[in-house]
Order: sequence, then C-alpha cells, then structure tokens
Amino acid sequence: MSSSWFTIAWRDDAVVMLDQRRLPAEEHYLELRDVEEIARAIEDLAIRGAPAIGCAAAMGIARAAVISAAGDAAGLIADLERARDRLAKTRPTAVNLFWALGRMSEVWASHAGAAADAIREALVAEAQRIHDEDVATCRAIGAAGLELVPEGGRVLTHCNAGALATAGYGTALGLVRAAHDAGRGIEVLADETRPFLQGARLTAWELQRDRVPVTVITDNMAGHLMQEGRIDLVIVGADRIAANGDVANKIGTYALAVLARAHEIPFYVAAPRTTIDLSTPTGRAIPIEERGRDEVASLGQHALVPDGVPVRHPAFDVTPAQLVSAIVTEAGILEAPYGPAIERQMADE
Amino acid sequence: MSSSWFTIAWRDDAVVMLDQRRLPAEEHYLELRDVEEIARAIEDLAIRGAPAIGCAAAMGIARAAVISAAGDAAGLIADLERARDRLAKTRPTAVNLFWALGRMSEVWASHAGAAADAIREALVAEAQRIHDEDVATCRAIGAAGLELVPEGGRVLTHCNAGALATAGYGTALGLVRAAHDAGRGIEVLADETRPFLQGARLTAWELQRDRVPVTVITDNMAGHLMQEGRIDLVIVGADRIAANGDVANKIGTYALAVLARAHEIPFYVAAPRTTIDLSTPTGRAIPIEERGRDEVASLGQHALVPDGVPVRHPAFDVTPAQLVSAIVTEAGILEAPYGPAIERQMADE
Repeated sequence: MSSSWFTIAWRDDAVVMLDQRRLPAEEHYLELRDVEEIARAIEDLAIRGAPAIGCAAAMGIARAAVISAAGDAAGLIADLERARDRLAKTRPTAVNLFWALGRMSEVWASHAGAAADAIREALVAEAQRIHDEDVATCRAIGAAGLELVPEGGRVLTHCNAGALATAGYGTALGLVRAAHDAGRGIEVLADETRPFLQGARLTAWELQRDRVPVTVITDNMAGHLMQEGRIDLVIVGADRIAANGDVANKIGTYALAVLARAHEIPFYVAAPRTTIDLSTPTGRAIPIEERGRDEVASLGQHALVPDGVPVRHPAFDVTPAQLVSAIVTEAGILEAPYGPAIERQMADE
Repeated sequence: MSSSWFTIAWRDDAVVMLDQRRLPAEEHYLELRDVEEIARAIEDLAIRGAPAIGCAAAMGIARAAVISAAGDAAGLIADLERARDRLAKTRPTAVNLFWALGRMSEVWASHAGAAADAIREALVAEAQRIHDEDVATCRAIGAAGLELVPEGGRVLTHCNAGALATAGYGTALGLVRAAHDAGRGIEVLADETRPFLQGARLTAWELQRDRVPVTVITDNMAGHLMQEGRIDLVIVGADRIAANGDVANKIGTYALAVLARAHEIPFYVAAPRTTIDLSTPTGRAIPIEERGRDEVASLGQHALVPDGVPVRHPAFDVTPAQLVSAIVTEAGILEAPYGPAIERQMADE
C-alpha cells in the first residue's frame, strides 16, 4: 500500500489503532494501554473485521503482559488468563478472535519454568508475528484468487473486508487490490452495509485512498443492478467458515448470495485459513451476535426510528456452502465439495 | 383511523400536507398555496407514495385554478396547462401522477364554453373527489385482500405504502390494517428502506400510532429472517404496474421478491387500479427515476460516504410478474397470468 495510514500497530507504550467509527470524517488514532480499553475498542467497533479483531486481541494479551506487575510467572499467567477471558467476551462470531487468543495462550503454556520477563518478551514477539503474518496472508489471498477476477470485472462487495478489517491489504479487498495492481481495470461497487455503514465509510475510503474505482450503493440496490447486468462477480470476506464450507459474514451477505445465484453471478469468499473453524461442523453451530438497538435506530443525533418501536439487529448471517462458488485462502482456491477440500487444505498447514 | 393526523387535505386557502421529511422527529404541516410550492414538495419528498402524489398533483391543479387571475376560460386553461406541465415533471415513475393530471385535464376539456369560475369550482370538487375516492379505494383493497393474510401472520413490508403514501389507510398497509382490525394478530417487520428510510421513519410511525405491532429491520436483514423462518408473507405497494403484471416499486422490492421466491414465501402487491398502466406493456418500458447523490451519501450533517466517491441512486426497480404471487386491487385479487386478469379487471371499471 502506498498510503500512510494503518489499521493497527504495536508501539512500546501502546497499541495504536485507527478509530473506524470516525471515518470517513476524521483519521484519528487511538492509543490504548490496557486490556479493558482494547476490549472496549473491539466491542464498540473502533476496530472490526475478523482478522483485525484477532490482531487486536493478540496485542491486548501482549499489553496485559507488559503492564502486569507480577514478579513471577505464576502471577503473570494469572493476569494473562484474566485478560484472555475479558477479550474472549468481546464478540462471539468471528473465530479469529478465539484463534488469536489460543495462539497467545500457547506461548505461555510452552514457557513452563521460564521467568516472567521471558514470557513477556515472547508474547510481544508473538503478537507482532500475528500482525505481520496477517498482512502476508492477505497478499497471498490476492495472488491465489487473481485468476477468478476477469478483465474489466465489476465487483460487488459487502461490508469491509479490506486493509481496515485486517492488519493490512485485506481479504476480499486484497483480491480486489491484486486485480487492480495487475492492471485488470476492475471497478468496485460497495454496498453501504447498514447499519454500521462499513461499505460506505470504510471500503469507499480505503479504495479511494488507493485509487481503485469505487461506487457506493445502498444494500437494497444490489438485486436491481444484478438484474440490469451491471455486476460480474461478488467477493466478500468471512467471520467464520464452518468445516462444511458454510460462511458466517456481515448481515446481508446471505441475501447477496441468493441474488447472485438467481442471476448466475459467481459468489466468492476470500478469507485466511484462520477464519476456518474445523470445530464448527456447519453454519447452524455459529453463534450470531445480536447487537443493540441504537446502531440501527439512530445515526449521530438523528433518530431514524420512532421512540418505542423495537428493532432487530443480528450482525451476521450464514450463507450455506452450496451458494458459494469458491473460497479463496492464502493456500489456494477451495471448491465444492468444501468439506473434503477444507480438510485437505487445513492438513497442509 | 383513530389518529388525528392526516397526509394531505384541501383547505380553502391552501393545500395542507404533513411534511414527511421531518418524521418521526416532528409532526409539521406545510401550507402550500401555489403550483411551484406543491411541485417542489413532491420533488423533495415532503409528500411521496404513488396515490398521495396523485392527490397532491390534483390539488396542485385545483390551486392553480383558484389563484389564476384569468377572467375568461381561455386564460384559465392556459394557466392550468402550465401547471399540468410543471407537475408532470416532478417524478417520472409513479403513474398515478399522470393519471390524476389526466383526470383533472378532462374536467376542463369537458367544460367547453363554461365560465372560468364554473371550471374553477369543478376542478376543486374533482380534486376533493380524487382524495376521497383514494381513501375508499384503500379500504376496499384491505377488504379484498384479507383472505391472503393468515392468522398470526408475520408480514414483511418495504418502503411505506401506508396512510402516508395515500390519501389515507394505505395500500399494503391498508391490507395490514384490515387484517389487524379483523383480529388476525399479525406482526409487521418494516424494512428501513434506504436511502430515504420510509420504512423506519414512516411505516413504523403510522403503525405505532395505530397500535399495530411493528419491528424495524435494515434492508439487508430480510433474507436472513426468511432463512430463519421468521417471515410468513411479503406485502408491498407499487408505483406502476405494467399491462403484463410487472411491478415498479421502491428500490429493493425486486430483491425481496427474489428472496421470497427462494424461500417459498408469498409475495403480494397491493395497489389501486390507478397504478395499473395499460399503455406500458412490460416493466422494461417503465422509466426508473435516478435521484441525487446527497440522499445516499449523507444524512443531515453526517457524511456517510467520503467526498469524491460516486454513488448510484436508482429510486425504483421492476419486479417481473412471475415473482408476484398476487396483486390486490380494490376490485379483487389478480393472479397469474396477469395480462388477461388485468385486462378483465380494468374493463369492469
């Protein structure tokens, strides 16, 4: 990326993250020092996107290690376990959160008998490694999926599965960036993605920064534009992929998949292997987060819904594997039947 | 309706209409005295909804007649023709606008040789008749379609096809009101309907006023809720119905129809016969209004999309007749094949 902004970074005295709630109006960076601050940034959507949540959680554990007053390993590990429990409660759907916490836990589990400071150092290094690997993984997703994006392709995407949803480069938008950089002359249509407007605010912002042509539409226009022949392919990210290939992603993804199938438009999912959860057999087992009323019912000072009228706010939905044309990971393109294809690719890890 | 509010009313010195841009925050009535004010109220969505636009246009012609300084019929008719041309340019998709203007034109055409004041009087009476007939028509739609709404039915609706979109009672919401009043114990899910939020702001407001249970969802949740088995039927209004049964309605309607079909949920359209346009053979011939960037890209003072990023804003889409389970008019329930069914019903008029 040529741009000078970043999603999340480790600094000796803080975790620094771009406050995504303030985009596109303001480019404001938060400096977070303790676990509670980092947990709230995840809960309140200052940072979001499955891989970015994983990075933030790993850095949260690293911060817990750095600021822990414990003099010995046992005391430090007690602090780390409290930090892990707090971070695990932030958001239920994206599996990368639990993956990252698991990976950090392995670090202290594998340092039996080490001094507290050695554990601290190892955790900080691991969090930075998770961050750097995530960027490399996104670039590998872009390279792996390039063959799926046709010359001049008009790509519909939903939510933000971009640099802002990862440590950098993006998953769905990683594929978009790879195609753009390869001179494919693509155009992006970005669903605004109500209620949090990740498409209008974040996808549009980061693609504009990188000079990838992007047009914003409201979510309810996608069907019409497919009917009019204005969309060639759909690429979305994922918050969790079950062992059978069912995909949990931002609310509205499932409707797009149904519409894409009805119009014979390919529907691709781009995600790192850390998003695949072999312990979840099918989409039915994925917990769907229900968020609060305010994000739907108001926008800043504006009440969009009359007082006293209830809203629903499922933040994710599940797209059954049979509606997915292919899943692109850093290890290549997965096709149906997804169960065995996923099993093979995860075994290569 | 038990409520004390109204959508549009004729008063001797003004056309009075509830400013729908300010709902749900404020119940503010506009008093409009000349044609330009009424045309702008239609263009700027102070009043919207196909039947209500027709009423407003008819009252616009009546106001033109009342305030015309012309002493003779020829001068008055010249003023009326200018008024008609202005009002006809306000919005292209809803056919009720052109129907109402045509009906008002017939009044002056049938008054050849009459004095200017006699024409004035006839036009005021005709505009009031169009208003009163529209309320009666909506009630007849509700009675005609009642058999389609099951006990305890969970009804999804899109946009606002309610009392606020008509002279009163509503088309899609007329059917909802009839079912509610008949004790069917129904519940309504209202798509918020971006970008103008007619569902969140208007449908929720008027159903809350009439104590019909209503829950607001973002447009992109409908597919998920169908998948979860939480929607029993879809009822929407229409802006224009072609002779073959293709339906133009608020953007997002087509996607709902595709989703309803995929989930085997009935998809009903409720509209007066004035919405049927026999001179439009199929949906392809219906002009789709493209509105401005601001309604999508900002909300009040909030920029939702970065400066310089383009948006699309088709305000309507076309649902092919084969996705429509039935069309309910004041004359009864139309079923496929729609071409002959429509022809028969329109011949009865």
